[in-house]
Amino acid sequence: MDKSTAKLIQELAEKLYKDILKKNIPALNFPVRSLENVIYDKKKGFFEIGDLTKERSLTVNTVKTFAQTIRMMALSHEIVKKDDMATKREAYYVSKNWGDARFTEQPESDAIMDDVEAHFRINRERMGFIPEEKGGEVAGKLIVIDKDPATGKELRIDCTQFGSGSYSIPIACEDLKFETHAKFILAIETAGMFQRLVKHSFYNTANCILVSMGGVPTRACRRFIRRLADDKKLPVYAFVDGDPYGITNIYRTLKVGSGNNAHLNQYFCVPQASYLGVTPQDIIDFKLKDATHPLQEVDIKRAKDALKNDPFIRMHKPWKKAMEQMLSMGVRVEQQAFAKHGLNHVIETYLPKKLKNTSKFLP
Amino acid sequence: MDKSTAKLIQELAEKLYKDILKKNIPALNFPVRSLENVIYDKKKGFFEIGDLTKERSLTVNTVKTFAQTIRMMALSHEIVKKDDMATKREAYYVSKNWGDARFTEQPESDAIMDDVEAHFRINRERMGFIPEEKGGEVAGKLIVIDKDPATGKELRIDCTQFGSGSYSIPIACEDLKFETHAKFILAIETAGMFQRLVKHSFYNTANCILVSMGGVPTRACRRFIRRLADDKKLPVYAFVDGDPYGITNIYRTLKVGSGNNAHLNQYFCVPQASYLGVTPQDIIDFKLKDATHPLQEVDIKRAKDALKNDPFIRMHKPWKKAMEQMLSMGVRVEQQAFAKHGLNHVIETYLPKKLKNTSKFLP
Repeated sequence: MDKSTAKLIQELAEKLYKDILKKNIPALNFPVRSLENVIYDKKKGFFEIGDLTKERSLTVNTVKTFAQTIRMMALSHEIVKKDDMATKREAYYVSKNWGDARFTEQPESDAIMDDVEAHFRINRERMGFIPEEKGGEVAGKLIVIDKDPATGKELRIDCTQFGSGSYSIPIACEDLKFETHAKFILAIETAGMFQRLVKHSFYNTANCILVSMGGVPTRACRRFIRRLADDKKLPVYAFVDGDPYGITNIYRTLKVGSGNNAHLNQYFCVPQASYLGVTPQDIIDFKLKDATHPLQEVDIKRAKDALKNDPFIRMHKPWKKAMEQMLSMGVRVEQQAFAKHGLNHVIETYLPKKLKNTSKFLP
Repeated sequence: MDKSTAKLIQELAEKLYKDILKKNIPALNFPVRSLENVIYDKKKGFFEIGDLTKERSLTVNTVKTFAQTIRMMALSHEIVKKDDMATKREAYYVSKNWGDARFTEQPESDAIMDDVEAHFRINRERMGFIPEEKGGEVAGKLIVIDKDPATGKELRIDCTQFGSGSYSIPIACEDLKFETHAKFILAIETAGMFQRLVKHSFYNTANCILVSMGGVPTRACRRFIRRLADDKKLPVYAFVDGDPYGITNIYRTLKVGSGNNAHLNQYFCVPQASYLGVTPQDIIDFKLKDATHPLQEVDIKRAKDALKNDPFIRMHKPWKKAMEQMLSMGVRVEQQAFAKHGLNHVIETYLPKKLKNTSKFLP
């Protein structure tokens, strides 16, 4: 793990220690983590945290939380020094040995962990804390460079060599390196569609890297795509269901991140992503009308909410138009709908046609 | 895919065709798929389908369902001939071109697909139909032999060579082959625990294959473990949370399958599995009491239901005792709880101790 994390923690600890020796009241600052403290800058391309901060100084009332915050930092320090890691849940259990500073429920320790990462403005993974869940598979023209956990020896993982299987993204991918001559990354909503593209080696024909998100992409999946796209200057095209959930949850989370984790979005969003499809216009252009589904109550609510409140949709005219078109057509469309024209229409017709005009993708 | 599937379909089609020419009423037989038609034989080790069948003969009332069944078989025939595949959802969309035999909603096409697989008593994957979802990652002493989807050339996938990442199990794994000298398969509930064991190369120290199930194992994950365990005569040890959900949902599904898919359990269960832990007794033996959680209403209900109604729990005395012990202790324990004694207590103490006495694992 990153050495600078250990250093950041050590410096803060020394400052607190000196404050105490000087009989100053030690204090910690945290950015306020809520939607009111979120800024969306179209150019930067992600939800960013604003300037509002709250202070936690050491008082009779805050002594337990203060101690827990310090112990959480100490745990992180120990973990990164040892090049180990801990899930959020493991960190909670470790606290059972902290005497009076132990946590009673995991949400308490999660909140402290969020505070610490917000304070340092680094992502949890760099503090050695990893999410519980994996997610995200890769196949295609990419070599991932990792190291053997036992020997530390460099490993080269060729993502064209997994047959019908694929490379599963590790929970923490901060230290991976990449080699590729691919032209783009295709981020796919469903595992079934991913498997079809793998089966037909679409990554060879299109010279690309396929990533299966399996619904809303996990932190690890977004971080992997982001690091790869930054490092290799690759565009990212999203191929998801053409419904309000696919657009405002899956795609928007991939591209700009989420509101209540704004202090992390700079690491966990993919601003270079654009939306290949399925668009409401595709329903017309690719004659999918009789393979659509009527919008449900919940779809309509989600679309109207987004038009009214979501800064991302509101700031992009093409998205406003697309959402309005969807509402007026009254239907949603899934990425499997192309099967209506034959199982491989999506590979032989839809994707090649769309990929000829990437500049027309929705932002 | 398997050639015999195409043959099975062709033979049935010929029989139906001859019946029609002879002016006999064509008919199809399906086993009844419900709990009343399930048998549990301890020796065989999985829920099995009984002898109740229902007949679908061609009448004015059944003409549409009959036609849909035939068309579904024809689609399967086409897919296996071409060595292609279709998800359940894709199959639904393909039906949009079947004129009056088209399906209105996907549950209709799913039911027909279930009928067809029950009729032939083969699993859907062998008919070329694959689930929507992936699931299951592998790391450790295993070489998976697959083929390059583009060239058909044999690929050897060494599951020790993925660093912090892992091999993601394909949706259909009927055609994979295996090479291994590992001594057992360790099937792990959470991705976080899997990542810890990978990070510390537990598969080297213990000479084993690690599989991350990520909760209740998917069809693909169970099928993979089963095929690997059968082929290489390996025992399978399950390491899941010590709570009624971990035992009666995750572990029991892995080991004996599920009630409402009994016609498939012979392929999708792992009778050679046993339960390493976490057991209620481990809470005492490994001093985890203050890292447990009180059983919730839903846990108690689930445990009592299992003791009363679940043929698997009822037939195994050690399981009855363990469930009763859990109820009387009134607590559940997670696989992360060992972190209380230090992050790597699970690797250095718990797993090695347990693995010395595999004959004591719960059945």
